[in-house]
Amino acid sequence: MDLLKERILKDGTVKAGNVLKVDMFLNHQIDVKLLDEIGCEFKRLFGDKQITKILTIEASGIAVACAAAMHFDDVPVVFAKKAQSINLDGESYSTKIESFTHKKVYDVIVSKKYIKPDDKILIIDDFLANGCALLGLIDLVKSAGASVEGIGIVIEKGFQSGGKTIREMGLNLKSLAIIDSMDDTTGKIVFRE
Amino acid sequence: MDLLKERILKDGTVKAGNVLKVDMFLNHQIDVKLLDEIGCEFKRLFGDKQITKILTIEASGIAVACAAAMHFDDVPVVFAKKAQSINLDGESYSTKIESFTHKKVYDVIVSKKYIKPDDKILIIDDFLANGCALLGLIDLVKSAGASVEGIGIVIEKGFQSGGKTIREMGLNLKSLAIIDSMDDTTGKIVFRE
Repeated sequence: MDLLKERILKDGTVKAGNVLKVDMFLNHQIDVKLLDEIGCEFKRLFGDKQITKILTIEASGIAVACAAAMHFDDVPVVFAKKAQSINLDGESYSTKIESFTHKKVYDVIVSKKYIKPDDKILIIDDFLANGCALLGLIDLVKSAGASVEGIGIVIEKGFQSGGKTIREMGLNLKSLAIIDSMDDTTGKIVFRE
Repeated sequence: MDLLKERILKDGTVKAGNVLKVDMFLNHQIDVKLLDEIGCEFKRLFGDKQITKILTIEASGIAVACAAAMHFDDVPVVFAKKAQSINLDGESYSTKIESFTHKKVYDVIVSKKYIKPDDKILIIDDFLANGCALLGLIDLVKSAGASVEGIGIVIEKGFQSGGKTIREMGLNLKSLAIIDSMDDTTGKIVFRE
């Protein structure tokens, strides 16, 4: 997605430790025009799949998932939650996810009411690096007996293993921008063609 | 907002401890058509205010804030984050917020890059109860020297003190549904006229 790649080059910054900061437009401040274009692109990529639910994980996945859902016809978003809340019933699927960014292991849950065996799920997230968050979401969908019809990622770090792992599982993963290399000393970012 | 009130009566459930569960359509599963109507209503209520940024707090405020921003002209969303992330620079405004739902105190931060003294801020959140989250967001805006032009809330628990406190501060607070009483034994919900 050229508009996104141009924006990453313009406003993204590379930090030590393979961190790409896109908090100017994606995950702290959000450019909602770009967000809407991203949602539109996910509809183009997965619109033929009879999706019944879009699943993401709080917090920064929520904006992207809602923007995508706005382009589908009456498809709700479900966001998995990172810790047990007193507002959730005991009736939840749960999994564990290790965060690359925060160096922590989270319990992640989704209510059994909102993923059913006949659901055709599109998983959406902002980032894919080592794939832990995504593997957790896939695990939640499988726990429910539902099917993963597609996985849409905004930015994939192609030099980390997550994308390869998930494609080797035979899943329909599409990333709007795949970064093959980045350098925090020069700031250079190279996208996969 | 009648559509919202009808939906609360249809799909909301009252739990002991003054908990209103609206996780079927607002803060776990999200009905994006309703979300878009909510965004449209916030534009109607605050569209005359020359808003430059919409500020919310992760996680469940993000969807509502983005839906509102989609109806404004080129107004970015900024969401305050609940804990220090290695992806945020040290240059942040911070405040402390006590969560009614989770019985915890959070450090909440927003990068100084994304709220400037000349910003005219619309604060958006899904719930208002005792007002702690909102007072924290107001504090962040004041730390930046920016102005709070309006506060839009989806559901206000009118029987808790937050709304009264914030209106007495002279702030332009508007809630799409205000609940004056609710009863977890009968399930009855009474809205303010």
